[in-house]
Amino acid sequence: MATFSPLIDRLLETLRVLPGVGPRTAQRMAFHLLERDREGGRRLAEVLGEALERVGYCERCRNLTESRLCSICEDARRDDHALCVVESPADLLAIEEAGGFRGRYFVLHGHLSPIDGIGPADLGLDQLEALVHQRQIEELILATNPTVEGEATAHYIAEQLRALGVRCSRLAYGVPMGGELEYVDGGTLSRAFMGRQPFGEQDAN
Amino acid sequence: MATFSPLIDRLLETLRVLPGVGPRTAQRMAFHLLERDREGGRRLAEVLGEALERVGYCERCRNLTESRLCSICEDARRDDHALCVVESPADLLAIEEAGGFRGRYFVLHGHLSPIDGIGPADLGLDQLEALVHQRQIEELILATNPTVEGEATAHYIAEQLRALGVRCSRLAYGVPMGGELEYVDGGTLSRAFMGRQPFGEQDAN
Repeated sequence: MATFSPLIDRLLETLRVLPGVGPRTAQRMAFHLLERDREGGRRLAEVLGEALERVGYCERCRNLTESRLCSICEDARRDDHALCVVESPADLLAIEEAGGFRGRYFVLHGHLSPIDGIGPADLGLDQLEALVHQRQIEELILATNPTVEGEATAHYIAEQLRALGVRCSRLAYGVPMGGELEYVDGGTLSRAFMGRQPFGEQDAN
Repeated sequence: MATFSPLIDRLLETLRVLPGVGPRTAQRMAFHLLERDREGGRRLAEVLGEALERVGYCERCRNLTESRLCSICEDARRDDHALCVVESPADLLAIEEAGGFRGRYFVLHGHLSPIDGIGPADLGLDQLEALVHQRQIEELILATNPTVEGEATAHYIAEQLRALGVRCSRLAYGVPMGGELEYVDGGTLSRAFMGRQPFGEQDAN
C-alpha cells in the first residue's frame, strides 16, 4: 500500500494489533484521528498506556482490575457460597450481563492445554483450591467453554476439588433460546435430547 | 453494560473514539490487548501518541507528514507541472494507489462550507494560489468529491485561479468500471450520457 510518511506507516501497522483491524480499517482509523479527532486520539493513547500499565489480576479471583481486589470481590452483597469458574474476563462479563448469578467468580485466563505447555499452575488452580477451602464455597459452577479444552479443564477441576467436599456443577447443555431447531448443530441437539426434562420442570431449580 | 473496573470502563469508552467501534468491539479490543497482547497494546499507545504529537501538514502541499515536506513533495521524479487538489489525505492515497498520476498534490483538509464557517482561508487557498504561481503549475486537476460541496469548492478554486493562466480540469464523471448499468444511479447515468465520447476515443487523453 502506498503511503507518504514513515511515522504514519508505523501507525497504520501498529493499529493492526487490534483484533479485526485490517489495512483499510487501520487507514480509516489513522486518518480519522489525525484529521478529525486528535484530542480523542491523545486520550486513547494515554488511557491505553495507563490501563496496560496498571490493570492486573484481582488477588482473590484473578479477574482484571487495577485494584488489589476487583469490584465483585469487594461487593459485600454477593453470595459467598457459589463460585463460578470462567476461562476469561469476557466470559465473566457475559454472565454478569445475562444477570441472575449473584455469587463470586474465579478467572482461569485460559484452559488446560498440554500441547501449549499450559498446566494447572498457569490457570491458578492452587489459588482456586485455597479459595474454595478458605471461603467455604458450597457450589462450584464450572462455566468453562463448551469446547473439548473447556470440558477437559472442567473435568480436571472437578476431580481435584471433589475431595474438598464442594459440589461441582456445569452449565446445562441444550438448544439456545430463540433459535430454530432446523439450524441447531447435531451435537447440540443430541445433548439437548440426553438432557431432556419432564415438562414443566425445566426451570425448577 | 456491566463491568468491573473504573480504568477498564474508561478504556472501553475511550476506544470508541475509533470510527466504527461500538461497545462490543471496544470490549473485544480491550480484552484482546489486556489478555493476549500487552506488548502490542503498549506499542500502539506509544506510536499513536507520537504520531499525534509529531504529524502535521507538509509546508508546501498540506499533506500529512512528520517532516517539513512530505515524501511526494521531496520526490524529484514527480511531474512539477500538474497539481491535483484533493479534499483529504485519504483521497490522495486512493489516487496514488490507483496509479497513473505522477504530478504533485495539494490537500484542502475539507471543502467550503459557509454553514460550518469553513472558508477559503481554512482550506489554504492563499497557499494554493502562491504555489500555482511560484512553481509554474500548468494544469490544476480539481479532484474534490463529486458531492454538492466538492463541486462548489472546485468551482470556487477554478474561478480564483483562472486569472493566473492555469488550466483547470475536473475528474471525468461517468459509470464506474466493472459495475452493471442496472445498478448505477440516475444522476451518474445522465452525467455519463452527457459526457459520452466517440467510440475508440474514450482513453484518448
